[in-house]
Amino acid sequence: MHHCWLNGTVTPVKDVNFHFNDLGILRGYGLFDYFRTYNGKPFQWDWYWERFERSAKILRIPLPLNQEETYKVVMDLFAAQGGQDCSFRFLLTGGFTDDSITMKKPNLLIISEDLHHDTPGEHENGIHVMTYDFVRDLPMLKSIDYKHLLILRQDFPAKGVTDVLYHKDGYISELSRSNVFLVSGQKLITPDQHILEGITRRTVLELAKSDFEIEIRPVTLQETLEAPEVFTTSTTKRVLPITKIDDTVISNGKIGPGSKFLLDKINEFVKNW
Amino acid sequence: MHHCWLNGTVTPVKDVNFHFNDLGILRGYGLFDYFRTYNGKPFQWDWYWERFERSAKILRIPLPLNQEETYKVVMDLFAAQGGQDCSFRFLLTGGFTDDSITMKKPNLLIISEDLHHDTPGEHENGIHVMTYDFVRDLPMLKSIDYKHLLILRQDFPAKGVTDVLYHKDGYISELSRSNVFLVSGQKLITPDQHILEGITRRTVLELAKSDFEIEIRPVTLQETLEAPEVFTTSTTKRVLPITKIDDTVISNGKIGPGSKFLLDKINEFVKNW
Repeated sequence: MHHCWLNGTVTPVKDVNFHFNDLGILRGYGLFDYFRTYNGKPFQWDWYWERFERSAKILRIPLPLNQEETYKVVMDLFAAQGGQDCSFRFLLTGGFTDDSITMKKPNLLIISEDLHHDTPGEHENGIHVMTYDFVRDLPMLKSIDYKHLLILRQDFPAKGVTDVLYHKDGYISELSRSNVFLVSGQKLITPDQHILEGITRRTVLELAKSDFEIEIRPVTLQETLEAPEVFTTSTTKRVLPITKIDDTVISNGKIGPGSKFLLDKINEFVKNW
Repeated sequence: MHHCWLNGTVTPVKDVNFHFNDLGILRGYGLFDYFRTYNGKPFQWDWYWERFERSAKILRIPLPLNQEETYKVVMDLFAAQGGQDCSFRFLLTGGFTDDSITMKKPNLLIISEDLHHDTPGEHENGIHVMTYDFVRDLPMLKSIDYKHLLILRQDFPAKGVTDVLYHKDGYISELSRSNVFLVSGQKLITPDQHILEGITRRTVLELAKSDFEIEIRPVTLQETLEAPEVFTTSTTKRVLPITKIDDTVISNGKIGPGSKFLLDKINEFVKNW
């Protein structure tokens, strides 16, 4: 059974009582992070912690725990749900407030969750995405601000897509919750602007460096539409091909050789984590 | 005692149990509105409702109640807290979610709150504000997204200010939670872009129209700094002078005649509401 640690108290997730008088819900003042375990070990723990700490610093919400204390909570929750591989969500908000605006003491929640399961066939056939002219507000941090996605995704079924590719002034940035790569021959290309620097992105860049020429730079929407292969990376997706962008079919609607190579590589890497 | 109506159940505010698994807190997907009663009657109720409905429509969150049903809840909560004039907060979120992203059924909270009390001397001496280069995301709707304010306001004490004036490309828009007006002779000037159209702004424009020449148009930061009088309007502030912007003193640090005229006028208007 999954549990939630909230300011020192561990409760089964379904029983977590929370007051609405929190700056996360009243003022959208919060951030989160999300990672999973492989073989019982939090994947890239140091990198996730570093990002969580950096996000909190930019939003100026003091972190109530340090890395070591947080690790202990994570491993306690891991044991409490039976020692199966699982995901973890950290949620840090401005906390309860007396006047609807003033921060007193942040609320930190650490929650264990079921693993996300791959959609069958998705890694072979890829996903279809729509484009949207937009840059996220403070994209470098993992704030809870997903309101544009929540508006847009109501149109996904009608458009036959499952995600959105953000672009602005001719340049792409990222999908709603994952990074984007282009493969062109031996080149692996990924944007450097207006993005959240994903941990899987970083992992893939590491795994790719001996086999690809890597370019981290502004990437135009036009070259993305013309790329032989495009894929996206995230904790839940690992390396997932994008095979259609609006009306443009990429890589004949199938995973391409460069993406397949990197998907196999990360699958092998996490198997041995 | 104040109560909260949550999806049909009325509970004392302190006892409202809420699960964190709500798209407001997980994804910043929510909006609110805030108004008060005068003489036991919700002030400008039709205008507030119209705005709340419009915000919900833009964010694409279905409203569970219509205007008439909501009015009944408001008046029930008004009676429950003893029939004293009070404030009301509406909070509408994407609701509880099974997968941290998909909306099923929105959560609507209607909460009675204590009235805000004026800070003594504030309406005579005005407030001091800092400027900040920024346009709110989706400014026309009253979303819960105040993260920039929550970051900025940590510096307010050191800067000797109590609010922030947003501007972009040389033009002002609004304070963090209120509209801005300039008075120059018989002219009353207020921005038309990148703002939330405040109900008090609309009320002041109505009250002023027989005595001022009204200009609703883009307003530069420069003319704001040079204006004889500047004031801000909101539910809690009514007409409140701004007497210092960064290092620039406005109206010799005191309320000016145009602002005083309009403050008296709105005070009279609400007295007889």
